[in-house]
Amino acid sequence: MADLDNALPWLDALKWDADGMIPAIAQDEAGRIVMFAWMNRESLLETVRCGNAVYWSRSRRRLWRKGEESGHWQRIRSIRTDCDGDVLLLEVEQVGGIACHTGRESCFFNELQGERWVPVDPVLKDPKDIYQ
Amino acid sequence: MADLDNALPWLDALKWDADGMIPAIAQDEAGRIVMFAWMNRESLLETVRCGNAVYWSRSRRRLWRKGEESGHWQRIRSIRTDCDGDVLLLEVEQVGGIACHTGRESCFFNELQGERWVPVDPVLKDPKDIYQ
Repeated sequence: MADLDNALPWLDALKWDADGMIPAIAQDEAGRIVMFAWMNRESLLETVRCGNAVYWSRSRRRLWRKGEESGHWQRIRSIRTDCDGDVLLLEVEQVGGIACHTGRESCFFNELQGERWVPVDPVLKDPKDIYQ
Repeated sequence: MADLDNALPWLDALKWDADGMIPAIAQDEAGRIVMFAWMNRESLLETVRCGNAVYWSRSRRRLWRKGEESGHWQRIRSIRTDCDGDVLLLEVEQVGGIACHTGRESCFFNELQGERWVPVDPVLKDPKDIYQ
């Protein structure tokens, strides 16, 4: 594990995986982890340029401007990377207080209880009312 | 993106990648993201069994009992997964208050400032005193 070489230009200092991707964790200002997604160089550059989180959708193979359909944008407060530069941590303001397509605050709403995953967080808004 | 099918046994409900891995985010009780690493089925089972975080070291190709060399164990408080079951979020008690091999609280100590990554968190303990 080689540490981040911050003598390199900032994009080159990051360790992109074999597919040119890096994982990105989005955390809101209250400390809640609201989402996890992937970025490529283009999406990270666009995130920095426009100030809202832009991911790379691996399923749709295109830039994914988080909030483009739901209005639930993520405004960037800060961007960090870890010791070896292969993960990003975005501090975001989660517009609307909902990050998940299920209408919950966070995508991480399933808790392991014994041998079952149990949804433990409330749905704040019906997805039918989010995606019209 | 298919949602988590929590009718399945809990390990099978998760979406393991082509290499049999799933990303895992470790968050301490104060909400700080302290680490990001990978798990396979064996390491997740061992994490649940022993109550401390056990990752899969992709570089060393073996189970990595976090803290085995440093004493900086991560005691598991809860385990969550996201809406589609392809990421884990571990709430941990970070023993010693240091998760990073650089002697910092968190691995995410590099902040993007303009076009530079700047280490913004203090080293709490000299790595030479951690790994003897």
